[in-house]
Formats: sequence, structure tokens, C-alpha cells
Amino acid sequence: MVKINENYANLRGSYLFSEIAKRVNAFMEKNPKADIIKLGIGDVTRPLPPAVAAAMHRAVDEMSKSDTFRGYGPEQGYGFLREKIAAYDYRRLGADITADEIFVSDGAKCDCGNIQEIFGTDMKVAVQDPVYTVYLDTNIMAGRSGEYDPDSERYKNIIYLPATAENGFVPKLPEEKVDVIYLCYPNNPTGTVLNRNELKRWVDYAKENDAVILFDAAYEAFITQDGIPHTIYEIEGAKDVAIEFRSFSKTAGFTGTRCAYTVVPKTLNGYDDRGNPYSLHALWSRRQSTKFNGVSYVTQRAAEACYSEAGIREIKASIDYYLSNARTIRTALEALGIRCAGGVDSPYVWLKTPGEMASWDFFDKLLTEINVVGTPGAGFGNAGEGYFRLTGFGSKEKTRQAVERFNQLSV
Amino acid sequence: MVKINENYANLRGSYLFSEIAKRVNAFMEKNPKADIIKLGIGDVTRPLPPAVAAAMHRAVDEMSKSDTFRGYGPEQGYGFLREKIAAYDYRRLGADITADEIFVSDGAKCDCGNIQEIFGTDMKVAVQDPVYTVYLDTNIMAGRSGEYDPDSERYKNIIYLPATAENGFVPKLPEEKVDVIYLCYPNNPTGTVLNRNELKRWVDYAKENDAVILFDAAYEAFITQDGIPHTIYEIEGAKDVAIEFRSFSKTAGFTGTRCAYTVVPKTLNGYDDRGNPYSLHALWSRRQSTKFNGVSYVTQRAAEACYSEAGIREIKASIDYYLSNARTIRTALEALGIRCAGGVDSPYVWLKTPGEMASWDFFDKLLTEINVVGTPGAGFGNAGEGYFRLTGFGSKEKTRQAVERFNQLSV
Repeated sequence: MVKINENYANLRGSYLFSEIAKRVNAFMEKNPKADIIKLGIGDVTRPLPPAVAAAMHRAVDEMSKSDTFRGYGPEQGYGFLREKIAAYDYRRLGADITADEIFVSDGAKCDCGNIQEIFGTDMKVAVQDPVYTVYLDTNIMAGRSGEYDPDSERYKNIIYLPATAENGFVPKLPEEKVDVIYLCYPNNPTGTVLNRNELKRWVDYAKENDAVILFDAAYEAFITQDGIPHTIYEIEGAKDVAIEFRSFSKTAGFTGTRCAYTVVPKTLNGYDDRGNPYSLHALWSRRQSTKFNGVSYVTQRAAEACYSEAGIREIKASIDYYLSNARTIRTALEALGIRCAGGVDSPYVWLKTPGEMASWDFFDKLLTEINVVGTPGAGFGNAGEGYFRLTGFGSKEKTRQAVERFNQLSV
Repeated sequence: MVKINENYANLRGSYLFSEIAKRVNAFMEKNPKADIIKLGIGDVTRPLPPAVAAAMHRAVDEMSKSDTFRGYGPEQGYGFLREKIAAYDYRRLGADITADEIFVSDGAKCDCGNIQEIFGTDMKVAVQDPVYTVYLDTNIMAGRSGEYDPDSERYKNIIYLPATAENGFVPKLPEEKVDVIYLCYPNNPTGTVLNRNELKRWVDYAKENDAVILFDAAYEAFITQDGIPHTIYEIEGAKDVAIEFRSFSKTAGFTGTRCAYTVVPKTLNGYDDRGNPYSLHALWSRRQSTKFNGVSYVTQRAAEACYSEAGIREIKASIDYYLSNARTIRTALEALGIRCAGGVDSPYVWLKTPGEMASWDFFDKLLTEINVVGTPGAGFGNAGEGYFRLTGFGSKEKTRQAVERFNQLSV
């Protein structure tokens, strides 16, 4: 009899965005004339940069002719792209990463989700709280989470690393020994970053404990402050303990175009039960060449164009646009006395709800009083309760309109 | 300490194509003037159909403008594509599949590889022999294979279903009870098909044994004979026991463009240890929405164009081109008294090596005597020993040249 992977039955429903849609729809039914502005969005809205679109047109033309057509490409990505990534995203910053340590893929979500496959199912996993749920859910599916405890609203075998206003959104090192640590910086959803010393503490912890850091840097391009590492490999020793995930989604507007990459240094080892070292690079390479078939050639040419002079300039203009929106939101909220994090090195503004309001109550308040939609922090985990996420991904006009309405909010 | 998934250590090296490359390179070093023709290729060579390229150009233009830009799409694929698949690939053939049972993805290899995640790790798995190694390797990685036995060259917990000339390349039903059965038709590598009655026996077996059939139909478009099912859902009852994998790779030339889909009927159940039914559709939906982020919008528009009048016509011309090559190869081989399968409903010709020659010996013979490269059948599994694969994916000119050289072969 065909049996299911019972770990799936251990997953919690994923209600955040469906619940938001439900509440918005109910409100609109009662208030059909309401002009709702959505600032909850975690998706880009600006079109593909012209340099990227031009590269795609050229690549489609190549694929249309016999003598320039390309079939299967290398599962790990074309050299033309991996070389540019290594040079621009790493060596330019002094990080010693080579092209063959880079695995091009169709999304950081896929890679963040699949990477746990190469580790033992008895590994102790630590995640930040609030958290991008993919890290957690994929470990539940693999059987690493233990049971869900409805009282604490947490899984018994997962180590949660709370990031709240109380610790300045810098989670403490775990008190018990963990093996696999997910870190996301600039953070989704809090919009906060780690400086060099803070990140170094994690690298040192991993070294001391033979742990691996899975470092999600999908929002790296939004970093504006000096002294904030753009890659974990700026930290000495990180090549021995960290895998890094990067994406073209939020930089070049590729959420609907699908390209990302993962760096697995060749110096990184895992161990079998007898303590023999295994190259994680070799394991990931085997995983990808068995279960993945490479990214569309047209898309890889699109990604390559992100490193052209025009591409770099055009992407910067998009990032500045989103960051300007985020700044507008944060400035307006702080003028009302609302405490905020993020919005400086991130498109996300993470606000403390006024008067210790619950996240969903604040959601209803924003929706009904000023017709603005955001994302309740509680949807990202326990430690997100009492927080709320707004984003700079909307249009400049809508963001300004929303911000003007903030003054009508009864806080 | 970070430990690896030790099942990976149980994988055998994947030497087939690297060994081929090694031998070809060694030969070319000694014979630099040799004009080598490669007929071992499993990849398309014809350019994207004009209707597909035109759709991609239009989609890139849409992505370049603010008002038509698209960010994240639905993880399961856009409705415009799923509706066309359901109508053309299924309802047109009388198979009752709806758009919401279709999951668009970036490759049949990915889906064939990932699907086993939703099943229990103690499931008994059956694979054909010779086999597309992805089915086997992904189950080894998940711990379902048991140990490798060097004597039989087989994994202890896998049930192998030999397909050889002796049984007309129609594998027998397993003697012991299995839970998950991989079937690939038209078959890679043998190029053979199952007729309606033969396929019905498998559906009936699955029903009687509460098993699931994972039906890989990536080569469906090559079927030319009447009475050969184009989808397993033409067989009564298949919706209760089968998942089907399809791809645009070998039809529309998408091996470098990446689009495929998987059908998981809503009527299909798996069970937990207590015998409670779970919808496999819901499980796969959860898997995909957690670990996958949809296919590029431009690519989905490209796939949609495959169902336009021009697209259908242009794809048929490509398929006919490859099939004509395959026929040319098979006819020439049979004129030499070599027994062949495939090449009728498939781009693959599967030949019995003359004089019981070992696959690799025949490889060396073809290479050195007539400078033609093919794929040794032994590389696809034990039951492939003594067989050899040639394909119709080369150019018409090169295929004809190769075939003329067959007459110089000492058989």
C-alpha cells in the first residue's frame, strides 16, 4: 500500500496570505468604493531593466536558429554567468569564491528548501523567529522538527532564535549545540542587518561547534550602510562553515523570471557517523545534477546582463526607488511615534504596533481606518506578534498616498 | 557536528557519459583527422519553433513595461497554460483531466526526482531495467534502495523489471508486492511502447495492490502508431493510481528553455500508517508551493504557444524530422541483420549488439571502425548489457553519413 511521507501531516497550514486576502475581500464587499493601497507586498513591481530585456531578446533569437541553438546546459549554470558572479559579487569584495563554487538555479526559495536534503535527518536545526517559513517547513517535511507543541506554538526539536526590539533584532547565540543554522540578512521580515562583528560571532560559533550556517542573502543589494557585509564570505573563516544563497529576484526584478544562485565552498565538509569528512560541494553537485536540469539559457543571459555597465546602473535605480519608498514609510511612522526597524538596508519596514496591539488587530485597524494593507508580524512566527511589516515594493505614488493617510490613524 | 545524508554515500558514480567522453577524446588524440559523428545524443538539436520564439519576444516586451510586468506567478503555473494543457493533451483524447490537476514545472527530471518525497521512506519501489537513472538515484538518496550488491549489481530493496528482447521489451508484473512503480513510455532508452492492453495490466495491478504508478511520458509526441495510449489516463481507472510526467523538452525543443508538467489527479490517495487516506494532489501542491516558485513567465508563454495552430504544426515538423532520422538508422541496421527495437514511436533505436558483443566493446568497435559514437546499453542498467542506443536527434545529413558508414562495419 502506498504510504505518504507522514512528516507532511506534521505541517501547520499556511494561512498568512490567504487570511489577509479573506479579510481584504470581506472589507471590500462592505466598502466597494474604498481605495485600498497594498503595502504588504513582498514582490517587486518595477519592470525588467532594459539591458536585461535586450539580452533576453538576443538570446531568444539565438535559440531560434540552428547554428546558435542550445539544448541542455550544465546543471550548475553556464560559465559565462558563474564567472561574472564570482568576479563581481565576490572577488570585488575581497571574498575568495571561484566560479565552480557557484550553482546557478531557478530560485533561492528552491535552494533554501532543497539544501537540507544533503544533511542527516537527526541534525539539530536553528531558525530565527520571526522567520521565512520555507526554512522551517522544509525541515518539518524531512522529519527534523519533532512534534508541534500548541502551547508554545513551536516545534519541539527546532531551536528558535528570537529577534525582537528587546535584543535589537540581533538574536543571541543558541544555548544548546546546534548543527544547522539558518540566517537571513538583510532580514526578511524585520529588515534588519548584522554588522561585521555580529556576523563574525556566528561564524565563530559554527567553527567551534562544527555547525553549518545557511546564509540567505537574497536582499543583499539593498544594503546602503558601510560596515555591513554584503556576503558572509567577507568574514574570515566563513568558507569553512557557510553556504550562501543569492537571488536576482529582488534586485533585477526576477521574481517572475526565476534565477538565483547558491555558493557552496569546496572547503566545506559534513561528516558521516564515523566522523569521515564529505565535501558538501560534491554532495550538492550530485543533488543538483540528479534532480535539476539547469536554468533556461535565455534567463541565464538575462542574469548575465545584470553585470553589464547598463545593467548595474539600471538595477541600482530600481533598488533606490524601493529604498526611497521604504524610507518614506519609516519616516512617516516614526513621526507618529511608532518604533521601526528596517527600511534602511532593506525594502522592509518592521514596526512595533502602537499600544502593544496584536498584529492582526493592527492589520484590521489599518485596513478599516485608512484602507492600507500590510502583513501581520505574527504570521512570521511567535516573536513577530506585536509587529507589522510594510514594504517599499509599491509604486512611489501609492506609497506617498498611504503615508499621507497615516496622519488620520488614531494612535 | 553537521552530518551528511549518508544515503548519498550509497550512490554509485555516474560514469556513463564521462566514460564516453573519455574514450572519444582518447581516440581523437590518436586520430586527429577522424570525422566523428555523434548519434549517442539524447538532446534536441532543432531550434525553437518560430511561434514559440515570437511568443517569447512578446512576453519579454510585457516584462519590460510597468503596466504589463509580472512578478511571482502561481507556483503551479499560470491558468492560461494549464487550461491549454488540459484541453489539448487530455480532454481531446477523452482523458478527464482538469487544469487544476496540472502542475507546471521547470523540468520532468525535477518532477520525477522530487515526487518520491511525498511517499514514505519504507515504500517498495520498482523500476524498469534498463532505466533512466534519475528514478533509481533519487530513491537511493531517500534511503529506499537498501545496500548495493556488487555481485548482482543491484540494490537489495529495489525491484527491477527487466525489459529485453526475450520478453519483447514488455516487463512482467512484479512477483512480490510493490508500492511505487516507475514506468516510462515511450521508453528511454529502449524506444519501445506499451499498447492499451499492456498498459491496462499495470493499472489493474496498481489498483489491486494499492500501488502508485509514476508514468513518465516525456516522449509522448513521438508516438505514431494507432492503439498506443498517449497518456495513461486513456486507461480506465488510471486516475485513481497514476501520476503522469510530461515535458516540452523533446517536443518543442525546450531542453535549454525548461518547461514541463506533472498531472496529479485529485482522486489519487496515499495512506498513513493507520490507513487514513491523504490526497496526493494536496501533498504535491504543498511540496511545490514550499520548495518551488513557479516557471518563468516568458517560458510559460513559450509553452502556451506550443498549442497554437502554428506551434502544433512547427512542432510536428521537428518530431517528423527526428523520427525520419531514427527510421533511417533502424532500416540501415536491420539491413545488416542487426535486431532493433524503437525508432517508430520514439527517437531512440535500441539495437542488440551483433554476436552477443558487450555494450562497451560495440561502442569501441563503432568508434574505431566507422567513427560513430553511440551509448552503451549497459550504462542504463544490468539488462541493458548487450544492447546499444542510437538516436534520431542528430542532423539529417550527419545521420545519413553515419548510416552509409554502417556498411563498412565488420559484422
